Amino acid sequence: MIKITFPDGAVRSYDKGVTPFEVARSIAEGLSKKVLAANVNGLVTDANHPIEGDAFLQLLTWNDTAGKSTFWHSSAHLMAEAVESIFPGVKFWVGPAVENGFYYDMDLGDRKMSEEDLLSLEKKMNELAKKNSAFIRKKISKTDAIQYFSEKGDEYKLDLLEGLQDGEITFYTQGDFTDLCRGPHIPNTSFIKAIKLTSIAGAYWKGSEKNKMLTRVYGVTFPSQKELDEYLTMLEEAKKRDHRKLGKELGIYTMDDDVGPGLPLWLPNGTIIIEELEKLAKETEQAAGYKRVVTPHIAKESMYLTSGHLPYYADSMFPPMEMDGEKYYLKAMNCPHHHKIFDAEPKSYKDLPFRIAEYGTCYRYEQSGELFGLMRVRCLHMNDAHIYCSREQFFEEFRAVNEMYLKYFQIFGIEKYVMRLSLHDPAKLGQKYVNEPALWIETEAMVRKVLIDTGTPFIEVQDEAAFYGPKIDVQIWSTIGREFTLATNQVDFNSGLKFKLSYTNSSNESEVPLIIHRAPLGTHERFIGFLLEHYAGRFPLWLSPLQVKVLPISDKFLPYAKQVEQALLESGIRVEIDDRNEKIGKKIRDTELSRTPFMLVVGEKEMQENSVSVRRQGLGDQGMQSFETFKNQIRDEIQSRKG
Amino acid sequence: MIKITFPDGAVRSYDKGVTPFEVARSIAEGLSKKVLAANVNGLVTDANHPIEGDAFLQLLTWNDTAGKSTFWHSSAHLMAEAVESIFPGVKFWVGPAVENGFYYDMDLGDRKMSEEDLLSLEKKMNELAKKNSAFIRKKISKTDAIQYFSEKGDEYKLDLLEGLQDGEITFYTQGDFTDLCRGPHIPNTSFIKAIKLTSIAGAYWKGSEKNKMLTRVYGVTFPSQKELDEYLTMLEEAKKRDHRKLGKELGIYTMDDDVGPGLPLWLPNGTIIIEELEKLAKETEQAAGYKRVVTPHIAKESMYLTSGHLPYYADSMFPPMEMDGEKYYLKAMNCPHHHKIFDAEPKSYKDLPFRIAEYGTCYRYEQSGELFGLMRVRCLHMNDAHIYCSREQFFEEFRAVNEMYLKYFQIFGIEKYVMRLSLHDPAKLGQKYVNEPALWIETEAMVRKVLIDTGTPFIEVQDEAAFYGPKIDVQIWSTIGREFTLATNQVDFNSGLKFKLSYTNSSNESEVPLIIHRAPLGTHERFIGFLLEHYAGRFPLWLSPLQVKVLPISDKFLPYAKQVEQALLESGIRVEIDDRNEKIGKKIRDTELSRTPFMLVVGEKEMQENSVSVRRQGLGDQGMQSFETFKNQIRDEIQSRKG
Repeated sequence: MIKITFPDGAVRSYDKGVTPFEVARSIAEGLSKKVLAANVNGLVTDANHPIEGDAFLQLLTWNDTAGKSTFWHSSAHLMAEAVESIFPGVKFWVGPAVENGFYYDMDLGDRKMSEEDLLSLEKKMNELAKKNSAFIRKKISKTDAIQYFSEKGDEYKLDLLEGLQDGEITFYTQGDFTDLCRGPHIPNTSFIKAIKLTSIAGAYWKGSEKNKMLTRVYGVTFPSQKELDEYLTMLEEAKKRDHRKLGKELGIYTMDDDVGPGLPLWLPNGTIIIEELEKLAKETEQAAGYKRVVTPHIAKESMYLTSGHLPYYADSMFPPMEMDGEKYYLKAMNCPHHHKIFDAEPKSYKDLPFRIAEYGTCYRYEQSGELFGLMRVRCLHMNDAHIYCSREQFFEEFRAVNEMYLKYFQIFGIEKYVMRLSLHDPAKLGQKYVNEPALWIETEAMVRKVLIDTGTPFIEVQDEAAFYGPKIDVQIWSTIGREFTLATNQVDFNSGLKFKLSYTNSSNESEVPLIIHRAPLGTHERFIGFLLEHYAGRFPLWLSPLQVKVLPISDKFLPYAKQVEQALLESGIRVEIDDRNEKIGKKIRDTELSRTPFMLVVGEKEMQENSVSVRRQGLGDQGMQSFETFKNQIRDEIQSRKG
Repeated sequence: MIKITFPDGAVRSYDKGVTPFEVARSIAEGLSKKVLAANVNGLVTDANHPIEGDAFLQLLTWNDTAGKSTFWHSSAHLMAEAVESIFPGVKFWVGPAVENGFYYDMDLGDRKMSEEDLLSLEKKMNELAKKNSAFIRKKISKTDAIQYFSEKGDEYKLDLLEGLQDGEITFYTQGDFTDLCRGPHIPNTSFIKAIKLTSIAGAYWKGSEKNKMLTRVYGVTFPSQKELDEYLTMLEEAKKRDHRKLGKELGIYTMDDDVGPGLPLWLPNGTIIIEELEKLAKETEQAAGYKRVVTPHIAKESMYLTSGHLPYYADSMFPPMEMDGEKYYLKAMNCPHHHKIFDAEPKSYKDLPFRIAEYGTCYRYEQSGELFGLMRVRCLHMNDAHIYCSREQFFEEFRAVNEMYLKYFQIFGIEKYVMRLSLHDPAKLGQKYVNEPALWIETEAMVRKVLIDTGTPFIEVQDEAAFYGPKIDVQIWSTIGREFTLATNQVDFNSGLKFKLSYTNSSNESEVPLIIHRAPLGTHERFIGFLLEHYAGRFPLWLSPLQVKVLPISDKFLPYAKQVEQALLESGIRVEIDDRNEKIGKKIRDTELSRTPFMLVVGEKEMQENSVSVRRQGLGDQGMQSFETFKNQIRDEIQSRKG
């Protein structure tokens, strides 16, 4: 008998050689039908792979990222099988799963693949999927593998084989198709119920333009037609909500060749949103006992040698500036500067927890090909803070940080989110992970307890922690169901030692503080990019660059419109008048299009009664109200950050 | 007869060859006794130098920077005369006026100068000053000059002579002392009524450590003993108010070797002040119709080639970062980024004036030896904005900017200030100044009119404008009478052309906007440094990092103290409790020392009556008040930014 430990900590006994699939069936028949693969001791394997000793086991389904990847990787094999039946003699390079689906690179010889071919391929794949062919794994010697692909005449697979060691080579076969592959794969093709091949592109072999151009076919598959339909609708909607398109239309940001790629310039409307987000963060952090600091954007090389960012992280940093015989770097993170602030004045246990926050601007080098609108940039305005605390204070501090995340999700109407808790691997202590076994166990347990106690949805990932402690990556979904990685939240036992930080505890001894790194709103860049899609540019009242537009029916009512405008301005409301010489119908239509939350139509009756006719974006005519009532209501609504 | 034009625009006729001194006497006998030198057509000359043609004339007195410089330069000659009489055979290098006085570098051979020698020198200088010796200017040929200093055996002056052209060499003699000097000088030594030699230092000849170390003697002189006394008192007070000392004591900022020199890290208390200043600026600018923007801290070389900062300003910029085959620079000013924002969307006359503001952080290279606390730094948080307007709008826009300066002076209790208006020189159009003669005359006149109309004290300086337009440098004095240069305010006709900025005017033609560069609060660094001295660390209530300290008489009243604290926190007031187990007398003394504006003592009576006993910093006991009354009063006082 062997012992199987599950993610929730439960332990059960099974016969040696039991498969994850069998384990699933022992729990529930329904579960076994959903298992795509399994995480066994941190390695993703086939669901039918026997487990030979005591093990940690996580059953992977469509809801797990690794489950989805396996599904899509198997779909790439299915597509290859279909391609081979329609384009006999095709040669294959590699076919991985990617963020939203999969692709396969292939050499079609003199033949070309057209959009129409994609439809035939989809049809063929559907046929093959229904055959319910198992994905069969087979170990094979290097000699036999070379012989197989030599006979097939696929020099690309032979090239891959060159880099592999004898003894580690496996083939996977489903139906009539066999591929060199390390796996894992889903149990059989019938799991794949809905298929969409999305595009054809050219891709140089091994990414080098000196090599032959191969054909790359992209696709995406799902376990049901419903999910494919939803995905296609989401894509359609995402196109309309593209943050680059909306960012331009709404005057949020611009890019300029003379400034440089990945360096957004924030226009007045974008800056209003930035300042509202900062205001929210400052209020929230102040209420939570944070103090604020301001640090320079550069520091000497020595600081990053101490922190360990240099040399290991050098590729992600901007190149140095050489000055006075020293190298200066643009900061890629705020932590080292904050550690210096902790260290600037002596600390005792009475000063802890010491929480310091800064909307720090960091610079990171990204390949120019990787840059993408506000989502992948080189300049990052980060909602950063560091909490220095004792071990006794840690649980409460981490809980409070988690609460803050949840509070923000509520404010922004983020209904779907998952915390991805990355843990260490005890076998790698002292190498991949700082060698503090007790602290790892203690803090991982505390972090887990916070997530469970607060009912926060989370998944655990083995062996993906940071060097210095467990971390949480926050995944959120926009209203149209697209996933974004928002922020991370990390525990750090190591930087305190590296920077020789200390405080005097109540027994008058020197201790090193624990550090929590947290950035719930992530960066302005990514978060505003997300919000543009999330709200389709229709920002809630409190965030909207323009909150109210006053529409006088004719010039005669301009003085009254100005009176209304002035009173709103004095209440801190962002308001403008549409003083164009246009019909009121056109003014209303144009204001609808500009996505302004409130329109106030003013004419004879409104002026006489000191009132306004209110139209609300998306809701239409709300009738006439006394101006005073309207003003108080809108002020309250802005203050509450609702709507 | 020749025509003399005065700074106020008045024109008078005089005989050819009239001296500034004679002109002064023609106006008022009293004035002639104060004239130290004169600005004739932009050149500072001796008061007895004949004027040979029509000229602009500004009579320079102790109240003019150039008058003061002349006074101190003449004092350096007087000191040299005294040194020569006490240390015969001394050789002299150079003796310029500096910011607060003058120095002279000398070679004393084997002799040393002591602090006691300074007293003898002062005595000797006073004796010599009373002799009323005139400073006599004499043109001399290079041969004769070389002969004079060869005979005297002063190889330093011979070295200076090497670099001079025959025909431009002049000697100045007062009493028994003759120096090689281009002048100008004050009329005679009797103007110098009070003398203080302040220090002796070593200085390498020509600043190179390979050369001989010379003796540098510093001094300062005044036209009356009273002014010297005031100066010494001011120095004494300035030492107590040293912003570096107060900055550390009050937790305002810190410097760190690993971050780098000239790069302050703002501690929580300093950050509160920064954020209050930014809040003031944002409110003020919003009310004045500015929009806010946010721009990156870097840009490509091409932008600074367009702006003209490269290559001319390269020495003041940080060295470039080379990336993707491009050079990126840290921004040393925000203007080019703002121009790009103006240009991001098409503009019509309806969009003008377009006013964009940013607390932009710039980086400038200063020699490490020049760095000084917050006063001379490499990282500058600048209260920047640019106004793009038409020629018709210019006067009103410039007036509004000037109003904003005056409003700020009032808020910060800055009672003494002078705007230094720098004008162009028509002879240098197309070289030192952009060749737009009409625009120069027009805008200079408008700027002058704004200053006159608003009763703003100002002085005019010829030939010191920026390349692209007239500028105003703002000089302010702290409460102890020390002068600071706060900010500049510039007109710019050139950048619009360089950046190809344009708007469509009401006749549907393309026009280039005028640009106003303005930064009334200067930089956080310099302004907070100034405020520390100005307030001696006793910040007014609205700026104070901590506003209220609650002092419970004993632990029994801690719950009530917490209730008071909570209510104040909810009103946005910065408050803490002194919960130490100390006698109330000690708590009061300690809080006095920490410079907190309000102390609230709470005991039995206060708790019973829901009241507080108020002590105000500097004013002492204010008696008992209902807590509600206190809370409303302090909130109003904070909001009004008074006190």
